[in-house]
Order: sequence, then C-alpha cells, then structure tokens
Amino acid sequence: MATTSELPKKYKAVIYDEPGKISTKVVELDMPTPAAGEVLVNLTHSGVCHSDLGVMTNRWAGLPHPTQPGQVGGHEGVGKIVAMGPGTENSTVKVGDRVGIKWISAICSNCPACLSGHDGVCFNQKISGYYTPGTFQQYVTGPASYVTPIPESLASDAAAPMLCAGVTVYSALKKSGAQAGEFVVLLGAGGGLGHLATQIASRGLGMRVIGIDAPNKKDIVMDCGAEAFIDHTQGKAEEEVKALTGGLGAQAVLVLTAANGAYASGMTLLKFGGTLVCVGLPEGELKPIATAYPQFMIAKAQRIVGVAVGDRREAIETLRFAERGLVKTHFRTAKMDELTGVFEQMDKGELLGRVVLDLQ
Amino acid sequence: MATTSELPKKYKAVIYDEPGKISTKVVELDMPTPAAGEVLVNLTHSGVCHSDLGVMTNRWAGLPHPTQPGQVGGHEGVGKIVAMGPGTENSTVKVGDRVGIKWISAICSNCPACLSGHDGVCFNQKISGYYTPGTFQQYVTGPASYVTPIPESLASDAAAPMLCAGVTVYSALKKSGAQAGEFVVLLGAGGGLGHLATQIASRGLGMRVIGIDAPNKKDIVMDCGAEAFIDHTQGKAEEEVKALTGGLGAQAVLVLTAANGAYASGMTLLKFGGTLVCVGLPEGELKPIATAYPQFMIAKAQRIVGVAVGDRREAIETLRFAERGLVKTHFRTAKMDELTGVFEQMDKGELLGRVVLDLQ
Amino acid sequence: MATTSELPKKYKAVIYDEPGKISTKVVELDMPTPAAGEVLVNLTHSGVCHSDLGVMTNRWAGLPHPTQPGQVGGHEGVGKIVAMGPGTENSTVKVGDRVGIKWISAICSNCPACLSGHDGVCFNQKISGYYTPGTFQQYVTGPASYVTPIPESLASDAAAPMLCAGVTVYSALKKSGAQAGEFVVLLGAGGGLGHLATQIASRGLGMRVIGIDAPNKKDIVMDCGAEAFIDHTQGKAEEEVKALTGGLGAQAVLVLTAANGAYASGMTLLKFGGTLVCVGLPEGELKPIATAYPQFMIAKAQRIVGVAVGDRREAIETLRFAERGLVKTHFRTAKMDELTGVFEQMDKGELLGRVVLDLQ
Amino acid sequence: MATTSELPKKYKAVIYDEPGKISTKVVELDMPTPAAGEVLVNLTHSGVCHSDLGVMTNRWAGLPHPTQPGQVGGHEGVGKIVAMGPGTENSTVKVGDRVGIKWISAICSNCPACLSGHDGVCFNQKISGYYTPGTFQQYVTGPASYVTPIPESLASDAAAPMLCAGVTVYSALKKSGAQAGEFVVLLGAGGGLGHLATQIASRGLGMRVIGIDAPNKKDIVMDCGAEAFIDHTQGKAEEEVKALTGGLGAQAVLVLTAANGAYASGMTLLKFGGTLVCVGLPEGELKPIATAYPQFMIAKAQRIVGVAVGDRREAIETLRFAERGLVKTHFRTAKMDELTGVFEQMDKGELLGRVVLDLQ
Repeated sequence: MATTSELPKKYKAVIYDEPGKISTKVVELDMPTPAAGEVLVNLTHSGVCHSDLGVMTNRWAGLPHPTQPGQVGGHEGVGKIVAMGPGTENSTVKVGDRVGIKWISAICSNCPACLSGHDGVCFNQKISGYYTPGTFQQYVTGPASYVTPIPESLASDAAAPMLCAGVTVYSALKKSGAQAGEFVVLLGAGGGLGHLATQIASRGLGMRVIGIDAPNKKDIVMDCGAEAFIDHTQGKAEEEVKALTGGLGAQAVLVLTAANGAYASGMTLLKFGGTLVCVGLPEGELKPIATAYPQFMIAKAQRIVGVAVGDRREAIETLRFAERGLVKTHFRTAKMDELTGVFEQMDKGELLGRVVLDLQ
Repeated sequence: MATTSELPKKYKAVIYDEPGKISTKVVELDMPTPAAGEVLVNLTHSGVCHSDLGVMTNRWAGLPHPTQPGQVGGHEGVGKIVAMGPGTENSTVKVGDRVGIKWISAICSNCPACLSGHDGVCFNQKISGYYTPGTFQQYVTGPASYVTPIPESLASDAAAPMLCAGVTVYSALKKSGAQAGEFVVLLGAGGGLGHLATQIASRGLGMRVIGIDAPNKKDIVMDCGAEAFIDHTQGKAEEEVKALTGGLGAQAVLVLTAANGAYASGMTLLKFGGTLVCVGLPEGELKPIATAYPQFMIAKAQRIVGVAVGDRREAIETLRFAERGLVKTHFRTAKMDELTGVFEQMDKGELLGRVVLDLQ
Repeated sequence: MATTSELPKKYKAVIYDEPGKISTKVVELDMPTPAAGEVLVNLTHSGVCHSDLGVMTNRWAGLPHPTQPGQVGGHEGVGKIVAMGPGTENSTVKVGDRVGIKWISAICSNCPACLSGHDGVCFNQKISGYYTPGTFQQYVTGPASYVTPIPESLASDAAAPMLCAGVTVYSALKKSGAQAGEFVVLLGAGGGLGHLATQIASRGLGMRVIGIDAPNKKDIVMDCGAEAFIDHTQGKAEEEVKALTGGLGAQAVLVLTAANGAYASGMTLLKFGGTLVCVGLPEGELKPIATAYPQFMIAKAQRIVGVAVGDRREAIETLRFAERGLVKTHFRTAKMDELTGVFEQMDKGELLGRVVLDLQ
Repeated sequence: MATTSELPKKYKAVIYDEPGKISTKVVELDMPTPAAGEVLVNLTHSGVCHSDLGVMTNRWAGLPHPTQPGQVGGHEGVGKIVAMGPGTENSTVKVGDRVGIKWISAICSNCPACLSGHDGVCFNQKISGYYTPGTFQQYVTGPASYVTPIPESLASDAAAPMLCAGVTVYSALKKSGAQAGEFVVLLGAGGGLGHLATQIASRGLGMRVIGIDAPNKKDIVMDCGAEAFIDHTQGKAEEEVKALTGGLGAQAVLVLTAANGAYASGMTLLKFGGTLVCVGLPEGELKPIATAYPQFMIAKAQRIVGVAVGDRREAIETLRFAERGLVKTHFRTAKMDELTGVFEQMDKGELLGRVVLDLQ
C-alpha cells in the first residue's frame, strides 16, 4: 500500500446516533485500510444536502431500508488521496491528488445499466452516507476508478456542492434536449438545485432561462443569469411564459422542487415538441403527474423525462464549469459539531444557501 | 394548366349527409381546378380508418369543430395526377404520377413546427376528410410539394392504409429510441395499428417484438413476426415481460389502443432508461397516465413520449418497407355505396382487418 | 395580387456587365410580377460576399456554368414584402413583413435531399445572384414559403451578412458535434466567416474558442470572445493547441479559410473522437485533405464532415442570436455605384470587415 | 482467492518464438494468479485473426513496439472463470461463468477517452496478444469488470470470432449512421470482416446491403443476406451502385479491406449526406484518402468516420445477435500445434473462412 506518510490510528466522524430524529454526534473511528482497487481519501470538506436530512430522519419514502444508528452521512466530499490499495498501480489517480466522493460512490461497471451508459442507475451502486459510510468524516475509502478528480484551481469547499446538486441539474439540462438559444423554464429556480441550474443553463449552455419561484427569490434568480423571473404566487405562469416565448411555450421545463403541483403546472408551460424534466422528488404518497394526458402529449408531440443523478463524466464536466467561474454555489461553512444545528435549521426551512462542513 | 386529357365535368363522391349519425351518401360533385401550387389527383382507392368514424359521428373529443353536412371524408387516398395548377412547372411530380393523400394533406412549411422538423404538428395544417375535402371521392386536389409519391411496384389498394396507420406506427417506433435487437412491447399488437407495427418493428427495423392483446389475436400477431405473445386477459403481463427480457423489462412500450388501462400498465413493463410511447387516443374525459409517478421515472431514468402522425418523409420510408413486402395490411375492398355498411360494422367492432374503398 | 401601394415600373439594379472581369454597372430593370407562391420584396440592403467575386470573375472551380453578362449578383438581401403572388393567401408572411433572401433562394421541398432534412443540398435549388437574379437590386421575387423573416429589433444592414456568413458558420458549429464547454479551434478566426464563428461559438453556444489566424487579426479574434489566439505564422499551432487543451487536442476544428494547408494542419489539432469540419472552399485544382489517413482516423476514432450552407431553420436561429446582440458583423455601407470599387478592394485583400450595399 | 478446484501448476501456450517470421511454438508456462480485481480464465477456444499475423511478423506499420520473442498471441478467446482475485467479491461474474477476452483486454475506465464513452481508444488500454499475454493459451487473467459474458446458448468456438471481427463491424455499422431500410455498400463483403458485416447489417439491423468483392465471393455474400453483389474487377461499381439506389448512391460505405484503392473509390459511391466508414487498416506507407476533396464533401454534405474496435457494450450486443442465429462465422477448428501452418496459409491468402484454435 502506497501512502503519503504516517496516518493516524483514529480520526473524527459525525454519525447519526438516533436515526429517525434530527441528531448527530462527533465520534472517533478507526482508520480504514483501502481494499483492492480502492483509495483512502483525507476529506477536508463535505456539503450538507437535503437528502441527508431525509436519510437521517427516515422520512423519505424512496429509501428501502431504515438507516441504522452509527451511520456516517454525507455525499458531497472533497479531499486528498493519502493511500492506495492493491491493484491500483496503473490507476490514473495517485497519492496527493484531490478527489471527490458523490451520492453514487461506487458502481459495478458491468451491470446492464452501467453497460448502457446509465451508471447513475447502476444495479450494484453504493450510496455514500446512506448504507455506505459517507463524507461527514475525515477519512473515507472509494474506488480508484470512480472517485472524481477536482480541477486544480477550484477550491475544495466550492467544489463539494457541485458533486451532487451541480451534477444533477447539469445532467437534467443535457437530457432536456433544449439547445443553446432555446427557452427553458426552471420551477424552483431560486432553490438549492435551481440557483445552480440557472447559472449552468444561462452561462454554461447558452440557454434562455425563465425562472419561477417565490417572490423573495427574484434577486438571486436574476443574479444567476435568468432572462426573466415569474412569481409563482401570482398564478399567471402560463400566460407569462407564453408572452415571453412568442406565444409558443418553452422547449423544456425542469421541475426542481418536491411539490406535486409543480409537475402538474409544468406541462402547461411547454411548446409543441417540448420536454418536461423530472428532477425534484415529491414527498408523501405516489401520485401521477396530474396533467400527463396522452391526448395532449400526442397532439403536441411532447415528452416527459425522468433524470436520476448524473454520472461521473457529467460530474467532471460540471466541475469544469465551476473551475471557469461560470457556476458558483451560495454557501457558508460550519464545523462538524455544528451539524445537528444545521439540520434543524434546514428542517425549519430557515437555511439560506448551502452549508459546507469544514472537516479539518 | 397541364392535363392528361379531357376531364369529366362531374364525378362521384361520398359525403357525410347527417354528421353525428352513421350515414353516408354517394353524390355527384363538380370537377375542381387545381389552384396555384396544386395538383389534381384522380383517386382510385381510399382506406377507411377508425378516425373517419370519429369525424363523421362527432364523437371524438379531440375535434374542435363539429363536422358539417356534405363533408367528404377519408384520409388514405391513392390515385394518379391528372392536372397541374400554375406554378408547378418545376415540381418533382408530374401528370401521370401515382401519389397519396394522407391525414395531414397540406402544411405551411414555415410555421415554427414545420421549421423545426415537426410538420406533423404544423400550425396551419389541413386535415383530409375533416374540414378539408377528403379521399372518399374520385378527384381531389393537393399541394404538388406535399403529395406522397407511391413506389411503382406497390399496388394502390395496398398502399392506401400505409398512408395513415403504417406511417403512424413507423414514426412511433423510430421515436421510441429502441434499437435493432432490443425488446419492444406492443399493447394492442393485433389491431389495425398493431399488426402493422409488429411487422415493421420485427421485419423492417430488427426489433424483438412482444405482442400483447386478446387471445383471439395470437395467430395474427405471431404471423406478423412477434417473438412472443401475451394474452392480456390473464393479468400477468408484467411477470411475462420480465421473464422474456432477462428480468429487465422492455426498452420501449407502445400503446396502440385507446384504453386508459393500457397506459397505466405500460409503464410497469419498461426497463430502466426505457420509453413509453403514446399513440392510441383514449376516448372520453381527460385522465393522466395513472402510473406516471415522478419518483419512479426519476429512479429508473424513464421517458414518456407523445407521437403525432408521422411526417411525409416517414410516409415515404413506410411505403418503401411495403414495396419490399416487409409489411402488408390485412384488408378487403368495398364499393362507394357500401361505405355506410362498413362504418356500421366498424362501430359494432365486427370488422376484421381494414377496408379499402374502390373508387372506380 | 395583393400590394402595398402603387409600384414603380422601373427600378435600379447592379449587373455584372463583363463576367470574367471585375466590373459592375448600375442599370434600370422592369419591375417583376410575383408568380404563383411568390412574394415581391423591396430590398434595402445586401451584403457583399467573397463568393460574389468568384461568381462574377468565373474563377471559382466549383461553378458548373459560366456567369452570363447582365447577371444581377448578391445573396444576402433584406427588405420588405410589397406584393404577394397567387396562392399565397394562407402564407405565414404578408405584405409589409421584413424578410431576407439568401444563397439558396428557393428549394423544391420534395427531392430526396429536402425530404431528409438536407435542404441546403436541394437537388432543384436556386442560387441567388448566380444563375438566378440576386440581391444587388431594389426588387426581387422569392417563394413565400422560403424567404426568411427578420426579427423586428434587428436592423436590416446588420441582418444582411447573417444570411450567408452567419448561418454557414452556425450550421458548421452545430454539425461539429462539439458541446458547450468543449474546445473548438477556428482556422481563419479573424476573417469574414471566422469573426462571426468566434462570437456564435463562444457567446451563443458556450464553446471554448481557440482562434488561429495571422497576427494582425489577434485583436478582433479576442474581442469576439476567443479564449486564446494562436499566430499561425509561428508554425507552432499543434503544440499550442495541445498546451491549451490539457494535452488532448480540440473536440472540433473548423476550416474557415480557402487554404489547402489549413485542411492538412487541421487534422493534427484534433482530440480522439474529434471532428474536422470543412467549410472554406479551396480554390484551384482538387486535392485531397493531405492528412486524411485512414490509419490515424481509425486509431483516434476521428471524423471529417463537409458542411454546405445552412438551411432556413438555421438562418432563423442565427438571426435570433444576432437579435439578442450575441453576434455582430463588422461592416461598413456603400452605394450601388461603388460596388466595382468594393470588389477591387476585396480582390486585393484590402477590405477590412464586410461591406453592405445600401440599395435605397 | 476463490477457485473451482485444484488448478494445475503448468499449462500449454503457443508463443511467437521468432517474431518477424511466421513461426510459433507450443510451450509450458506457469499458472498465473489473478491480481486484485482480476479473474483467471481457463480458455477453450481462440479465433486466429489477420492482425495476429501482423503482430507476429512485425509487418504492421501501426504497431509502435516490436513484438518480443515469447509473446503469447491471440485476442479472441473464450473459456470459463476458474478463480477470482481479491476485491472481486461483489463482481457480476463468478467462478464457472463463461467469458471472452478481446483485442482490448483491459481499460482504465477513467482516462478522458473512457469517460467520454470511447473505451475503444482508452489511453491505458491493454491489447491481448500484443504486449499483453494473449489467448493462444489455456489460461489467461483479465479484469472481472471487463471480461465479456458469453450467452448460454452460444457455443464457445462460434463465439470466439465475434469478439473481434464481429464487434468491429457491428460498431462500424452503428457509427455509419445508416438506418434500417437504407443502403450500405460493403467493400470487401466476402472477407473475414465483410461476411459478418453482411449478416449483421441485413439480418440484424434491417439495412439493405450491396456487397462488393472479387467474383469468387459472390455466393458467400449473397448467402449472407446481401441484396446485390458487384464484382469489383469489372470496374463499374459506381454505375452499378447508382442503378441499385435510384441514382442517389448509398447512405454509407464501409471499407472492410486493407486496400488504399478501396478508400479512394468508396467516396464515389456515397449519396449526399452519406458517410464513408474507415475500418480496414491499409498496410505500407501513410497515404491520404485520395478522394477526400473538401469541395465535394462540402457540396454533398458528406462525412468520413474512423472506427476503432468496438467497446464492451457493443461486444455484448454482437454476441446477442449471434445467440439468436442472425450472424454466424464460417470457420474450422485447428489444434495448437497447427498454428504455424494456419498462419502460413493465411499469409498466402489460401485460408477460406476463419480458423478457431481448440485449446483443450
């Protein structure tokens, strides 16, 4: 095993001590050894995402197994490789490289999903911070062939949130089929996903963004590069989108919130041949998209597309946009022992922007 | 005006004399003159489609204007050009050419839909046999630039049904995104659309077809080239499709019937990354696709696509498959004065295969 | 025929009076009448393109027929519709609309090329200013279904050059397959095609542009949005492109000059899986691309793509980028009787930027 | 290390004992141990490919390093997994599975090429039978994540040649962009690559194949499913292809031979918008494709595409076509000690069909 230097025997991590409740605890864990094909990463930063709250509190209907006490959460981690396991001699990463760990932290690379280029739905995926140890800790292992290289000039704290929110919206924008110069509507344009999507769409991909959100989000949405903002509380989104798009509607509508209502209204904002992109996971019971009428979809040749988290290639492309300064996360940093407080704020909806844990 | 020879002053046509009821009448009409850019076609055959019944009886919720007495129906016509209007000197068709008239009989070619290659949803389309004179008559006019050339070796009666049912399913199969060698499930595989889709998918496009329909359709579905047949009355379509596809589900599912239930069950037959294609127009009130859950579509990266009628290029490609004998319609011919009886049979569900009117 | 008002009987045009030489003459012509399906346009501006020089002087090897005395040149015209021919009642353009006439001024819409979406290579195309009367005149006719609508807020003189140079490079950039965030090398980045390509690629499509040209073009190239400039006279393009692209080479290389040497060197600047796009027409004898080695193209999975002029949809999209101010032509205006002088300057290579004729 | 049973200490292999000459020797080698992430495969069959002759004789200009004495050749191997190295516990393959080893026997999965889906040009690829021990031996190791599963009902000897020739032509046909129902011309249609391409194109992908080769290949080409055969010695390929394609030319032309002349003539057989696909590696000095004229490629909007060996997903898809009986290799089996003789015959051009070594 190749290592940088002597590693400590113990290190600090934050665990979910009482899953189901909002409660975290800083503990000491034994240093792991990278297995065959793995690297050991000394993490310095991890983003805190709304999905972490769902995993910790077991509220999220989509999770098949209840989270266990002692689980280390987190899935937006950045740090340096400090050791390499056996069989990594010819790897393209090496000790000293800065890399990221994301929601899907490992794939099998030869299930039908991986083989068809859908590694975001790998049948044997490991999910960081859910049933696999996550990034709310100082050291973590990951596959040498699947950790994400971080561009040299991009700070680690700025890079962390790109690994989840950033890559997800980038992937959704690509899969929307909208081209540079075409209109995309972002439902929830001022939120965690939305403010990144607005920047990537307008500054990175040359799309014309119409942002829809609550009125207090107008400034951030326009600052992020939107061409127009619509206050959804006025109930006139359909007329306003039509007016802005020459009467046609938008080429793509991305639903970036968890509200069922956003899905229902989204379809009405589309142009003929347009695409509704599902990104935000509605909470509660399963309900169909209320306006997914075959008659209308046929008459207007429209599409609905579900987008899972992006793949590693998309993560790398997203980081490049961040490196060039075209997309920036609004975030503040916090210490490991402040994490419970962060989650409490998040739960009350009081969090402005994103929080990145400083793990050092 | 260039013409083949002396044209009669009058000719025979079948009109809807009492729209709202099943009633047609053979009448004599004055010979039309082709306007600028138009050709005059001496039709010899016209397919009779279920949509004609909807137009005649005004039952079809999708039609904005009630059909008027005296309307000439029909939208699957084939015949010879006998005269050319002004401004057609440089046209690629000429007097004597055999051409077809289809559901969309004319487009504007410069609305946003036409410009983006969606001429099937042209903003200024004319629909044959609805508010434009159709193909249940011996002569009809159409744009020189939009009539569909019929391949020399393909009989006119065999060509007629290709212009609507054939091109629609060909377009739907292309837009499904399924590749040669992949599984497609056809819901309603033995029906008017389905038996053509089965042939085009398996013999034309190299797809592996799983046909689903009522048990009395098994023979026609298997004869048309399906790899497997599932009797939908057994209620085990999901297990059977999984078993046939290595546990994964199908790459695409085409809904070729008007049943809302088919849409709901269709989603459950899909593979990750698969596509549900909406073709059959449900009757009655608007209802969303009952299983279009954002959560599942996101987790499985699935798509739903609405497919309007195909465009002219697709019509030409469909006719080529027919010319090569890879797809054949099951049909019988009838005379113009038998049309009311044909619609009565169609209405009772007693019609086996398709009927083509002999207009001579 | 619908007209705005009384039209004059005669109007002014510039003809090639001695094709083969650089010589033009202002003459008076009879007012034409729009034929079936046509509109009559009162032109106010026409761009002057290097291709016009080729047509006038018969120097251009690609032209099958020698230009005849009396030919009206020009293929970048903008003006208002003043009359509509028969059969245009349902057209989407009307008297008073501002429209453009481009290189391909008419297509048949039903040859194999048109049907497959390649209207830029229509088998029955008319070419403005070559064997069809062009846009160096005050009035011209064109098909109602093929003239290009000009966006309201875009000035006519600024719009004119977009109809040829702009749409050609936009089409080439799209067909290059390069995505937003990827590197494209433009050979001849500071020229007539190049300075528009630089702007559209960087500001419109989000690509990262490396411009290559003579050193006196550096300022214009960087002003147009390039990320880097390479002076081709230094002979180090390959090393510099590698250095700028992390050692990989560019995703696409567009040859926007007429120099055979540019084609040969272009291949060496490509990444694996990259595409060389042929736009500039070499003069003189036919020579193969000197570095189109099957062995290298196979080993690196590379492509070469020939791009004819863009189609009408691309013209409309290009004009929208211009309307939004993302692409601007560097031009000065001249009068009709100054055209010979303009061509003489062009021939000596003394012309800076583009010239637009003021036809009023 | 998981193993089936006791493995022998020694096993038999065929080496190139005098690279540069046609000479092989059967030797005994020590049993290897699978490293981290690897499996050990007990090979039963290996195809013998023309590329092996090139590697052995060092004739092939494309090979950067001379082959060393003792090299085990071969790159079309099939056998059973008998042992698994460390870190393969969660692999999707297991002891007892039948798998294949192909030309590219291992990839890094995170170089720029792998990340962009071009694993056929992986920067860190290992090539079986060249500078990595190949498949002319009874045991070989390979990455658990990159060996190719063999469908249950496909015999090992029939599967072997699919792993190189089959997957290469399948990949080339996909990358040609030709659709079902369109014409493809195969230059060298009766050869090792060609007879597989003819079957996959016509029976698997629904393309219309025009095969071109020497007259003695006519029977095999037509038996493989071609619609027409052209004897290239008659020198009338261009006229004949035009006649067969309605005067247009083919949508795609695949060059499946090593002759420079085939590249030059290939371009002349293409339709507007068509694609020349480079597959066969010319021997001798580098020469450009003699008819790759920018002027013509621009005027006809044509493309040239280089296709490296297919990736693993394509290998799996190719094997599925073979499993369904749609493509079959013409082959005979030989013993390990007959290999020198096989290469001698191959060198003289006397080999009919392919040879598969029986390694048991």
